[in-house]
Amino acid sequence: MKIRVYYEDTDAAGIVYYANYLKFCERARSEQFFARGLSPESEDGYFVVKKVEAEYLKPATLGDMVEVTTELLEKRGASIVLMQKVLKDGDTLFTMKVKLAFLKEGRVCKIPPHIYSILSDWNES
Amino acid sequence: MKIRVYYEDTDAAGIVYYANYLKFCERARSEQFFARGLSPESEDGYFVVKKVEAEYLKPATLGDMVEVTTELLEKRGASIVLMQKVLKDGDTLFTMKVKLAFLKEGRVCKIPPHIYSILSDWNES
Amino acid sequence: MKIRVYYEDTDAAGIVYYANYLKFCERARSEQFFARGLSPESEDGYFVVKKVEAEYLKPATLGDMVEVTTELLEKRGASIVLMQKVLKDGDTLFTMKVKLAFLKEGRVCKIPPHIYSILSDWNES
Amino acid sequence: MKIRVYYEDTDAAGIVYYANYLKFCERARSEQFFARGLSPESEDGYFVVKKVEAEYLKPATLGDMVEVTTELLEKRGASIVLMQKVLKDGDTLFTMKVKLAFLKEGRVCKIPPHIYSILSDWNES
Repeated sequence: MKIRVYYEDTDAAGIVYYANYLKFCERARSEQFFARGLSPESEDGYFVVKKVEAEYLKPATLGDMVEVTTELLEKRGASIVLMQKVLKDGDTLFTMKVKLAFLKEGRVCKIPPHIYSILSDWNES
Repeated sequence: MKIRVYYEDTDAAGIVYYANYLKFCERARSEQFFARGLSPESEDGYFVVKKVEAEYLKPATLGDMVEVTTELLEKRGASIVLMQKVLKDGDTLFTMKVKLAFLKEGRVCKIPPHIYSILSDWNES
Repeated sequence: MKIRVYYEDTDAAGIVYYANYLKFCERARSEQFFARGLSPESEDGYFVVKKVEAEYLKPATLGDMVEVTTELLEKRGASIVLMQKVLKDGDTLFTMKVKLAFLKEGRVCKIPPHIYSILSDWNES
Repeated sequence: MKIRVYYEDTDAAGIVYYANYLKFCERARSEQFFARGLSPESEDGYFVVKKVEAEYLKPATLGDMVEVTTELLEKRGASIVLMQKVLKDGDTLFTMKVKLAFLKEGRVCKIPPHIYSILSDWNES
């Protein structure tokens, strides 16, 4: 997934504001659903972020075209762990290991099979 | 209402990003409700923005302590018009005339008396 | 220019936060430069927003694919006026007339010819 | 440091968007400088985020008044590690261990004594 860095993403230090890399990663996770005509939040439940371990390697700047990659590290019954990276021209700028729990009506819940199949694309990335 | 300008509010041009003045003004509108232990969105309805006429006079920068003032320009049955300003040390940086319609379950609706009384503080500002 | 509505763009009312339509419009203005390998901010100067007149017609929601159109309404020596619209499936959600002044080192300055030629694409839209 | 949750902080799931807790924490770090009439970014250098380890325990919602606490975990010559927490009524909603490196003109640099003294307040929190 390609993302352009716009003014809104940058701050007065001239680089992308540190919280905004998390936005880029969330866009990639949600796009996995949207691209199939699905919503990341349905009657069947939704993922919530439980844990983030992020490393900031190099900054992105205004106008950069960055790429977000997503890899599935762990698949459990009610949670997954992803490795997401933001790259520019093949250079890694940011990495984030993110644990997501699956909830339904506010409670942890088994991930339904059709959601599992959506996630399976991430194995290859 | 005093608001500090943080990194998140600025962009790579070193000044507050133009859309963020609208955030500052919305905070002031909502705080009018929160400060009374109320929510701007309740079963009685909520305001939605219909029109904005904004002028950008001078930029705010990182660390600035700005002030938002709100004045009620027009009170109608189902809408209001406010004049909101962002100032720094008495100097006007930004002005916004904003028209808000009152909705209930998605439909235009008469503003209830207790909401009217919340708004009345803005007459004096 | 197509833009997907992500979680970050929405608020607790379930729709796109009112300031974020201004972000979408700015992306379209900047993309005009980025797509040519240029920056909206160079040694030759940059545009700053002076005035915004916006109307909110219908809300966009999570997952919507919206389109931003840009039309040049007025070209003067040191400023331009654009009409920008956010549409969904041909339906207009938001319109914004925006006046931009051209600055160089903080002062109003004549728009250089090569910037004028970049803007000329907007005539057709 | 007290922070009110406004519409801009929430998303369509009705809770604070996950990246925005990082904004709240950054406000608290910067306020340490602003409250002394200083800038977090000066000729002497500035901190950049290198690592974040965050846990999401409970969500904050619209109108909540949350508190950010900051504790200094490690002080080294050119970097510090902080533990920052977002609480509501004494209840911990979010924790973040954040490593910051001190840079000057883009290079890692020893933290000057007067910056060290600003940070020392965090020992007690």
